[in-house]
Amino acid sequence: MGCAVGQMASFSKTITETDVYGFAGITGDFNPLHVDAVKAEAGRFGERIAHGMLSASFISTVIATRLPGPGTIYMGQEVRFLNPVRFGDTITATVVIEELLDRGRVRLHTFVENQKGETVVDGYALVKLPRKEGEGENG
Amino acid sequence: MGCAVGQMASFSKTITETDVYGFAGITGDFNPLHVDAVKAEAGRFGERIAHGMLSASFISTVIATRLPGPGTIYMGQEVRFLNPVRFGDTITATVVIEELLDRGRVRLHTFVENQKGETVVDGYALVKLPRKEGEGENG
Amino acid sequence: MGCAVGQMASFSKTITETDVYGFAGITGDFNPLHVDAVKAEAGRFGERIAHGMLSASFISTVIATRLPGPGTIYMGQEVRFLNPVRFGDTITATVVIEELLDRGRVRLHTFVENQKGETVVDGYALVKLPRKEGEGENG
Amino acid sequence: MGCAVGQMASFSKTITETDVYGFAGITGDFNPLHVDAVKAEAGRFGERIAHGMLSASFISTVIATRLPGPGTIYMGQEVRFLNPVRFGDTITATVVIEELLDRGRVRLHTFVENQKGETVVDGYALVKLPRKEGEGENG
Repeated sequence: MGCAVGQMASFSKTITETDVYGFAGITGDFNPLHVDAVKAEAGRFGERIAHGMLSASFISTVIATRLPGPGTIYMGQEVRFLNPVRFGDTITATVVIEELLDRGRVRLHTFVENQKGETVVDGYALVKLPRKEGEGENG
Repeated sequence: MGCAVGQMASFSKTITETDVYGFAGITGDFNPLHVDAVKAEAGRFGERIAHGMLSASFISTVIATRLPGPGTIYMGQEVRFLNPVRFGDTITATVVIEELLDRGRVRLHTFVENQKGETVVDGYALVKLPRKEGEGENG
Repeated sequence: MGCAVGQMASFSKTITETDVYGFAGITGDFNPLHVDAVKAEAGRFGERIAHGMLSASFISTVIATRLPGPGTIYMGQEVRFLNPVRFGDTITATVVIEELLDRGRVRLHTFVENQKGETVVDGYALVKLPRKEGEGENG
Repeated sequence: MGCAVGQMASFSKTITETDVYGFAGITGDFNPLHVDAVKAEAGRFGERIAHGMLSASFISTVIATRLPGPGTIYMGQEVRFLNPVRFGDTITATVVIEELLDRGRVRLHTFVENQKGETVVDGYALVKLPRKEGEGENG
């Protein structure tokens, strides 16, 4: 669980209609942009796109399961939504250790890119590392 | 779609195991804290809790479906995770119009509380309103 | 696939939170009565209950899979919602052949009861039988 | 929560394989018409179609969340299934206040159309309004 500036880890998934419909079904966000192909076709992107917070959630996946990993306390996240994620796009969420702060806190650069290398979500997270090995198994 | 400082809207849901497992299944965040009752019991909260980003996602639901509503362009979100959401907690995501900026942009105060009135997620969103009525049907 | 007046068939399921949350997630019906334990507790039934149309949908299950079975054309359904279905209730949907009409049409008495024998949904369906054996495999 | 004859509200969603499989999984209606592409291809519609009761359920979504909205007591529903809903069709469920009856009861014209304007489900609902503002928060 040691952390050094510059370390990075990623997680990738192809975002499908099933993902977007599942996310809408859990969150109640049935914005036509996500679940109405007719309205979406007439709109800004010409088709349904994924929820921005769905894409952003993969950052949490990397933090919680890879870097820093289980035990990390997720204190905060800021994101900017820069580009749409279309059904079928493969996105990669990446976390980079940006700065080691006091009291075990770490600032992470967090971003999500699509298969073309375009950044779809960009931002920073603040986390706190478990105090010692194994301590924070599920922190 | 008119917006005035101080306007607010909310969305409530009781967060269940089904929600958390569905969210884990979509995002791949299988942190033991969320899906391993044995490890979670031995940990900081004594039981499995919901993903922070799941709770934060209900902010997007309010923005996209209630205030400012369909057509709003979601530019960014910052959140701090302040308290855990336990299975069975009923959370309410609230959005308040905080400040009208230039070029149709609006700053929103966004927070999520549990049934005891404790704030579990707090932060701000930046959105852009559709330029004219109906224009942004699915923006 | 022969049909005689008085023939009946049933289908039972214990309705869980998972069923109700799944149904809400597909249909977008996030009425607090179904997904908000706090508001539901203060309300008419004292707890969250299942969507009426979820219970009614099991009638379709019986018609399509048991009696008259695959190939049946579902022409219409009327239902009255008589009692709430609570999480954990075991409901049984029953279809009874009520009347053979002209042109292969059949009138069905359709109802759903809970584990106490209380009728939760009552009504009638109009269906059309496949013209000959095997013809309507998926009609 | 005021109601006047002629008032209307709608809800739209593109119906996907995910929706139909989720609905089958909850209700147990695994009619080949909905989940067996081989049998469905050889059948009446040439492909799998959505469950009629799935389409009808969006009427409940409008009633419970938009018009008359939360607190409405859903007393009964009659529907005729007029046309199939194919995977990928975008359907719109609409509720129109048809007649104000005694004791707070209201008769609603309820119908579901596809993206071509074809009516797929048509019928009527009987509901009861909450007795006073706020009273029926989850009725």
